[in-house]
Amino acid sequence: MRLLNLVPVISDVWTPEMGAYTFQYLRDTTEVVTLKLEHGPSSIEGEYDEMLAAPEVAFYCEEAERGTWAAGKFDGVFVNCFGDPGVRAAREAVRIPVFGGFEPAMHMALGVADNLSIISVLKNVLPLIHGSISKAGLGKRVVSLREIGVPVLDLIDHQLVVQKLIEQSVQAITVDNAHAIVLGCTGFVNVREEVQAGLLEAGYDTVVIEAAQAAMVMLENFVTMGYMQSRLNYMPPRQKDRNWWTS
Amino acid sequence: MRLLNLVPVISDVWTPEMGAYTFQYLRDTTEVVTLKLEHGPSSIEGEYDEMLAAPEVAFYCEEAERGTWAAGKFDGVFVNCFGDPGVRAAREAVRIPVFGGFEPAMHMALGVADNLSIISVLKNVLPLIHGSISKAGLGKRVVSLREIGVPVLDLIDHQLVVQKLIEQSVQAITVDNAHAIVLGCTGFVNVREEVQAGLLEAGYDTVVIEAAQAAMVMLENFVTMGYMQSRLNYMPPRQKDRNWWTS
Amino acid sequence: MRLLNLVPVISDVWTPEMGAYTFQYLRDTTEVVTLKLEHGPSSIEGEYDEMLAAPEVAFYCEEAERGTWAAGKFDGVFVNCFGDPGVRAAREAVRIPVFGGFEPAMHMALGVADNLSIISVLKNVLPLIHGSISKAGLGKRVVSLREIGVPVLDLIDHQLVVQKLIEQSVQAITVDNAHAIVLGCTGFVNVREEVQAGLLEAGYDTVVIEAAQAAMVMLENFVTMGYMQSRLNYMPPRQKDRNWWTS
Amino acid sequence: MRLLNLVPVISDVWTPEMGAYTFQYLRDTTEVVTLKLEHGPSSIEGEYDEMLAAPEVAFYCEEAERGTWAAGKFDGVFVNCFGDPGVRAAREAVRIPVFGGFEPAMHMALGVADNLSIISVLKNVLPLIHGSISKAGLGKRVVSLREIGVPVLDLIDHQLVVQKLIEQSVQAITVDNAHAIVLGCTGFVNVREEVQAGLLEAGYDTVVIEAAQAAMVMLENFVTMGYMQSRLNYMPPRQKDRNWWTS
Amino acid sequence: MRLLNLVPVISDVWTPEMGAYTFQYLRDTTEVVTLKLEHGPSSIEGEYDEMLAAPEVAFYCEEAERGTWAAGKFDGVFVNCFGDPGVRAAREAVRIPVFGGFEPAMHMALGVADNLSIISVLKNVLPLIHGSISKAGLGKRVVSLREIGVPVLDLIDHQLVVQKLIEQSVQAITVDNAHAIVLGCTGFVNVREEVQAGLLEAGYDTVVIEAAQAAMVMLENFVTMGYMQSRLNYMPPRQKDRNWWTS
Amino acid sequence: MRLLNLVPVISDVWTPEMGAYTFQYLRDTTEVVTLKLEHGPSSIEGEYDEMLAAPEVAFYCEEAERGTWAAGKFDGVFVNCFGDPGVRAAREAVRIPVFGGFEPAMHMALGVADNLSIISVLKNVLPLIHGSISKAGLGKRVVSLREIGVPVLDLIDHQLVVQKLIEQSVQAITVDNAHAIVLGCTGFVNVREEVQAGLLEAGYDTVVIEAAQAAMVMLENFVTMGYMQSRLNYMPPRQKDRNWWTS
Repeated sequence: MRLLNLVPVISDVWTPEMGAYTFQYLRDTTEVVTLKLEHGPSSIEGEYDEMLAAPEVAFYCEEAERGTWAAGKFDGVFVNCFGDPGVRAAREAVRIPVFGGFEPAMHMALGVADNLSIISVLKNVLPLIHGSISKAGLGKRVVSLREIGVPVLDLIDHQLVVQKLIEQSVQAITVDNAHAIVLGCTGFVNVREEVQAGLLEAGYDTVVIEAAQAAMVMLENFVTMGYMQSRLNYMPPRQKDRNWWTS
Repeated sequence: MRLLNLVPVISDVWTPEMGAYTFQYLRDTTEVVTLKLEHGPSSIEGEYDEMLAAPEVAFYCEEAERGTWAAGKFDGVFVNCFGDPGVRAAREAVRIPVFGGFEPAMHMALGVADNLSIISVLKNVLPLIHGSISKAGLGKRVVSLREIGVPVLDLIDHQLVVQKLIEQSVQAITVDNAHAIVLGCTGFVNVREEVQAGLLEAGYDTVVIEAAQAAMVMLENFVTMGYMQSRLNYMPPRQKDRNWWTS
Repeated sequence: MRLLNLVPVISDVWTPEMGAYTFQYLRDTTEVVTLKLEHGPSSIEGEYDEMLAAPEVAFYCEEAERGTWAAGKFDGVFVNCFGDPGVRAAREAVRIPVFGGFEPAMHMALGVADNLSIISVLKNVLPLIHGSISKAGLGKRVVSLREIGVPVLDLIDHQLVVQKLIEQSVQAITVDNAHAIVLGCTGFVNVREEVQAGLLEAGYDTVVIEAAQAAMVMLENFVTMGYMQSRLNYMPPRQKDRNWWTS
Repeated sequence: MRLLNLVPVISDVWTPEMGAYTFQYLRDTTEVVTLKLEHGPSSIEGEYDEMLAAPEVAFYCEEAERGTWAAGKFDGVFVNCFGDPGVRAAREAVRIPVFGGFEPAMHMALGVADNLSIISVLKNVLPLIHGSISKAGLGKRVVSLREIGVPVLDLIDHQLVVQKLIEQSVQAITVDNAHAIVLGCTGFVNVREEVQAGLLEAGYDTVVIEAAQAAMVMLENFVTMGYMQSRLNYMPPRQKDRNWWTS
Repeated sequence: MRLLNLVPVISDVWTPEMGAYTFQYLRDTTEVVTLKLEHGPSSIEGEYDEMLAAPEVAFYCEEAERGTWAAGKFDGVFVNCFGDPGVRAAREAVRIPVFGGFEPAMHMALGVADNLSIISVLKNVLPLIHGSISKAGLGKRVVSLREIGVPVLDLIDHQLVVQKLIEQSVQAITVDNAHAIVLGCTGFVNVREEVQAGLLEAGYDTVVIEAAQAAMVMLENFVTMGYMQSRLNYMPPRQKDRNWWTS
Repeated sequence: MRLLNLVPVISDVWTPEMGAYTFQYLRDTTEVVTLKLEHGPSSIEGEYDEMLAAPEVAFYCEEAERGTWAAGKFDGVFVNCFGDPGVRAAREAVRIPVFGGFEPAMHMALGVADNLSIISVLKNVLPLIHGSISKAGLGKRVVSLREIGVPVLDLIDHQLVVQKLIEQSVQAITVDNAHAIVLGCTGFVNVREEVQAGLLEAGYDTVVIEAAQAAMVMLENFVTMGYMQSRLNYMPPRQKDRNWWTS
């Protein structure tokens, strides 16, 4: 199968190392292509960025289904952001499964523990994630929503990120009574093992869920099993005039 | 004060009669300008349309605050759609109050009755509105979400719309135990009086809330009283590269 | 229009200055008359006081609608207390809109931020307000309920009140994750501007909602737009023997 | 122990037969005195009636604790109405347990089944009971709230009441998925056995909870075990001026 | 009436003193027999122990109803553990009321205060109790779930237990805003009076609910009043092959 | 990897055809062994059956982790029943992932649609599943819980089952507003394709989730990714005396 890893920003942040890490649990027969946006924000840190990323995300999903572009046809799309930009719009438009980073990570985490804490990057994104939790009706399982105070484009400071994630995870466990941690930004690449090890060392034998890996695996499941979003929920957009930008 | 009535579609649906009806409860000193989008859908009937309308909505709100365009500067913006397209994004971007159609209608309806029913146009928009209810945490007050099966662009058939709204309202009252009705599309113009009268005739002494009127009045309140969205909730978008379309 | 500002206590606390502050956002054509009770408590700080205030509140609302008393006829009544004493009873009795302080402040605050904190006077009133939140189904939006430890009749110490409101607001923001503050007592007159300024100075660019102003404006909206409580929710009291006190 | 059965209406509805039925499960050593109000409604069928009954209910509870009146001193008070008029106010005022009809019936019913349906007298009282459910946080257990369309003062037509209760119970079971029935008016005396038998005959082996019996038994438990309302929740009314009617 | 106090563990922990304390509020005509398990855990501190205790609990309840064993026939069974092991299974099997320790304590506590805190023995049991709260739909009333860090079999250190219960209760009141305390382990025998007195001394005039006493009294109520679990909820197990262990 | 498909009943219901259907989406390198219980019920249709199956389920999971039995060592266990018998107990006992049928099916279904309906076999099992939904905090996503009135051991009548599932699914969609269907019994083998096709033919383009397939795939994911239940949630059973049956 062919899956599209759509990084919904204009910045050149994706590296082969990130791909190797993120796609490591997929089947050998699964091919992944990574694309980024031409129009949109350089990172997604709030509702404004989400809005700006959404149209091209939806458009790329339509291309991914049609396959008339250079990248060819895809069986499923992962919109590589915990903010799920354009995901619900895209689901209306196509008949292939589309996931953002929020849902698969949460659905997998639900199998891990009763009380979950989501730890993200900045205060700015918390209302957006809070809205996702409410829309998903998962408020009874999420005991806290925390952030490490590091912008997305500064996540390359690996040590800092790991240390701050451990700090916030300990707070989540001891103060909020969390049983497991969900990394609430798909920019948290290659850190879950170290965070989980750091927590174990601190005496907390818990689980850390990484969102992009979870999403890729869930997407592969859906394609393998022939599942996709229900058309009774995500009804096809009705035919009518729509003006897209033509740059 | 100057308020912007931003109709977030590309179609030429707004008429002076609609303005007269919608703005009738505003103070004499309030000036309203109506604008529509250049890029976007011709009507909003689902997540896909919402996504396509959002960027220009946010952009117009920024212009409305800056006032460097022909339309001048505004003290508040009403995004004239029950789907609230781009509203949360715009709130992050500006320091003037921004409302879509959902929230003010609901907030006013909360003062009218315990059990509310929202009646909208088509099945396609229900998941979007359902998501708005969940995000707003108002699920305990909304006893049902109904639709009349008429697309937005067909709402001009006044008699049909009134009749179907009465039918669905009666269902909402007798089956869902609703105490009051919220018209769940800002395209339901100039019908609330007839629907309410029709219901009274049928034996139901209830209240019908029209969304655009409610939004304009609430917006005027906010400007008058010096209120706007909290910046702790809607934090200003951080400075960074963003590629907008340049058509 | 004529609105009744019914202060539901027997004490002589209302001053022209309070009126000037509270009614400042109303239209020029709106006349407000302020009355207080003959029987009831001298302040409302719990369920017991609420119970004692309620009968005369309901009775005055009936008089306000009939207009056969000296004060004349009114188009709407504001029961000037965050505890909403007698409000639901009065709504059953009359066909003019009746608001207490809780609902309009909350409905307006819902348009300001996702996470609200209510700050009131004393521990004694918190269960009453907690009950109002539960009955209103707004628990998902209220992240905390705090108090400043000052009885209603001591609220005249302006500086103390402002300082303690700022202190509790900072706690609400930093500990409870509140985005905006609702002043949970209509005795908090002429303080919202200073509290909001104090919070801004402390680094919190947030919004403070004052309940009596909000109620007067919402009441004016309702009368202007022809809205009132639904009779399907607030059914007229059935005819039967009722013994009122005749003192 | 001595318990006060306070019938919170002015009408002369209580009979020795009702007492024999209602108090049949109490211990031999428990003495019950029944009193009614001098001021208040002749029956309680909504918020207006509840408001009118509340002050004297609270006052009688204070007398019951002090014991300086003719009726002597009591160890606990049952306010004999499913609408719980004045109950929370009275609890603040006294240090003896006070129950209305709603809570004990519900607390006992929670031990009987997961899904409960409350069946009351008239549409007018449903919002009041709905508010009690919300305030009590029991919404997840109450699957429906129904009524038989018979005013309180017409409940003497025993056969009609039984038949209509069976009809509504069958609806609650088959349509609302109720597992057990709570009789939502303390005027439903001497009917639970017949309703339960009628349901069994119709094929539904379920349980019918009668509110006044439940309340008397729970009140006796509380007195026996030395329990009463927490003073952290129901704080004593602060000393200050209060004008009561002096008729 | 005859009630079975079934201690669902294999250890020999029950003493006549515990019986005198636990059964002190029952009527003179009520006979209580205490039995323990032959197979099961020596204490219940988690889901694993609960699973191991459940089968014999259900079996003993069946025997208690049939009365063909040495212990004779019983009118009701109290499964003496706050974890309610086997309670729902037993309720399906028999037509006599069966209670564990969780429900009656909670139902009685609901009559005491709005905000409850449950304090149990060890971290290990909290997820089990958390699940009971969720299944019971009582999450809105329970503001916290705490533990004293003492295993069940060490509860004999009376002074330690009382002191730690007071400490945690003070935390529950001051940090979690609890109004009353539920002792979340039926091994907390003979401590509620001292804990309540200690809290009063510390300035907190609150109520402490002891679970086993509450359960015995509620069970006696149910038998007296002829109530039991609804058969629409707890349907009799269907006839089919079942292999029990035959040791 | 080696996965244990543990059928938690004593009856000989599992066939190679069921295995071929259920395991079809697993990787080639995944080996599955199917075992059934020696002690327990012949099918699981309520709390009583669940209780009887649980101990051996937990014991087999311990064996599966230790690998000292004939079946060897396993990397994860699927307890093949939608009632999740013994699952939480087993999770405490072992450090390999353990899933029943409820959670994985629900977690996968959450990615498919907002509104889910679960359709199971008999009325008897609905309270058990209702409890699972409540404990999982997923009540906001499950719009109905239905059953087809066919006992587990009669599920071999393939045509009947498919037809009744389609009937109930149509009811779920049209009456309960479901967007997708979860098959609420792992005995519903080899029917999802026909039910989904039947619904499409009836005009409903929806998705049907089969529980055992979902569980096997999710279990494989967990093992592949190194995830398992959090030990902060599922703490290891403390060392102490436990009497197991020794037959």
